[in-house]
Amino acid sequence: MGGKRVDDSHFVLNERLLASTHFICDLPLCRLLRHDDARYPWFLLVPRLLDVVELYALSTEQQNQIMAEISLISRFLKDVLGVYKINVGALGNIVPQLHIHVIGREMDDATWPAPVWGIGKADPLLPLDVNHLIGMMHEWLEMQ
Amino acid sequence: MGGKRVDDSHFVLNERLLASTHFICDLPLCRLLRHDDARYPWFLLVPRLLDVVELYALSTEQQNQIMAEISLISRFLKDVLGVYKINVGALGNIVPQLHIHVIGREMDDATWPAPVWGIGKADPLLPLDVNHLIGMMHEWLEMQ
Repeated sequence: MGGKRVDDSHFVLNERLLASTHFICDLPLCRLLRHDDARYPWFLLVPRLLDVVELYALSTEQQNQIMAEISLISRFLKDVLGVYKINVGALGNIVPQLHIHVIGREMDDATWPAPVWGIGKADPLLPLDVNHLIGMMHEWLEMQ
Repeated sequence: MGGKRVDDSHFVLNERLLASTHFICDLPLCRLLRHDDARYPWFLLVPRLLDVVELYALSTEQQNQIMAEISLISRFLKDVLGVYKINVGALGNIVPQLHIHVIGREMDDATWPAPVWGIGKADPLLPLDVNHLIGMMHEWLEMQ
């Protein structure tokens, strides 16, 4: 039981995820990505494992590590960005590679109180904003 | 850190959740509910804790236990009901009391591949079907 760990040089990110995100860093288990949509502070956690589709297919240790990484990103959203609510979701109806959405929500955001998925059109981030976020996040993560 | 455990006689389920679900049983941490919508095999896990809104506010032990209970229900969905995909979500934009959705999905269900939330109208379950599910689930849980 559990997803097979792959050497990082052999980890392949689904191409749909690759095309719609910016790389931030690799956490102990997951690749951390910023979804390319300026409407929300929207992150993705993708375990660097081979062929895993469902959360329950991970080992207990991997599940606990994912939960720790979800909490880490949630604290960044709350403590640094000051978001009102956090939405966490593992859906995978379109992209089978296991990925967990961790999204900051505001009561006046584009789709509140509906979920973010499949509503409206993504608003691509500016390169400057991506670079700023990456810098801020690296700095914050180093302090944790 | 962590949600405060309350005596089960003092645990109060949000009234919106109460009105839209059927009680199945209490797992070690969460109350397990069947969402009253026959369109999907849709379960809810509600930690029996005081005033918890976000997953990251739970203690590490509670987070790991939630993950174990999500996995348990996921295995029921896969192994017993044979669903195609599992959707897991903690949103809480409308009902603040922390609750985790664990939903079985099929490629020909009412809203596939969109998420289930906020689309169309719930199709209430028949009392006979609820009783059958509760019986089947109690039996399966005892064997785990």
